Formats: sequence, structure tokens, C-alpha cells
Amino acid sequence: MTFAATPEPPYYAVVFTSSMTGNDPEGYAKMAESMERLAATMPGYLGIETGRGDVGVTVSYWQDLESIENWKSNIQHQAAQQIGKAKWYQDFVVRVAKVERDYAMSGWEA
Amino acid sequence: MTFAATPEPPYYAVVFTSSMTGNDPEGYAKMAESMERLAATMPGYLGIETGRGDVGVTVSYWQDLESIENWKSNIQHQAAQQIGKAKWYQDFVVRVAKVERDYAMSGWEA
Repeated sequence: MTFAATPEPPYYAVVFTSSMTGNDPEGYAKMAESMERLAATMPGYLGIETGRGDVGVTVSYWQDLESIENWKSNIQHQAAQQIGKAKWYQDFVVRVAKVERDYAMSGWEA
Repeated sequence: MTFAATPEPPYYAVVFTSSMTGNDPEGYAKMAESMERLAATMPGYLGIETGRGDVGVTVSYWQDLESIENWKSNIQHQAAQQIGKAKWYQDFVVRVAKVERDYAMSGWEA
């Protein structure tokens, strides 16, 4: 299973949509993997789901707004954000949303 | 630009995460395109962003909960959902979330 094992709502989702410059894809892939590992150690982290098409869509799930702020201001994450803006991302949009309800087809335990 | 042109928050996001059976990919692609076109005609529709990796992540944006309910119960959409459950989707999770704030790097007008 590759779905985030989120708890009963409410919890929070950060929807990160991005388009890439195409520069240094190997460096980006390494950093993305490293940031996913780091995020998973943060308090309030609930999981992540990601896909890429015309744009990349990454949704990370968090217990509350405080855990999102804490992750946003993490020093290693901030360094990665700076490199991302300078080198990898052409554009991105971040949306912070409160999950009010969820449901599933099967095979998924909230 | 392939980002959804969403307005100032608050508005709603429906995060649809799915894994596929792998059956009939052409039929699925046709139906997905048809449903995106249909969704775009619905009242309260604000846009859609989609990517696919280990899972598919599709985020559609809506003005309010009423427009989401209206889309969910659309008769053509319901027929597509039934075929999807029977044939294309191995699993899926739907999360309905209220976007409380958003920000962007550049090039994006909310």
C-alpha cells in the first residue's frame, strides 16, 4: 500500500503543485527523497502521496497547523527550499487545507 | 500554466488518491478525460491538478461543499464511478478538505 495511513479527520493536507525547470533532475530526486525521509521524522507527520504529470502533485498530511509550521521552518528543509527555488522549480503553488472527511474503496485503514 | 486558477481561500479541495488494476488503460484514459471535461462544466468547479507515480494523485478544487456533492451525485459521473470500481481502480481514498491559505513562488495568479 502506498496510501498515507491518516487518522480520522480532522487533520491537515499540504498540497504542493509544481512545474520543474528540468535542470539537474538527479540532484532533485536525491533531495526529494532526503526531504521525504526528514519529514517522516517530524512531529505530527502523517504521510505523503505524490504523482507527476504535466505538473507534480505532492500531498503531505499533518496532525495540525503547528506541525506544518514546524516542518516549514526546519533548517534543513529551508535550505532545500532555497535550492529548489533557485534551480529545480519553475513555479509552485502551496495550499494548506483542513481535511474534514475521507472515505475509501477498500483495503485502506484510516 | 497547468495550475488550477483558484480564487482567494477559503475554497475546497478533493484529494483523490488511487492505485490501478492495470486493466483497460485506454478505456480509463478516455473516461478520465471525459470526466475532466464534464467536471469543468459543473457549478462551483475551480480547476484540477493531477499526477501519477506509485499512486495517482488528482486534486480537484471547488467553491463549496455543495458543488462537491452536486458533482459526486452527477448521473454520468456516478456511472463512471461504478465502472471505475469494477474495472480500473484497485483502491482509492477520497479526502475532502477546506483550503485555508495558499501561496506561490511566481507566475501564478490566485
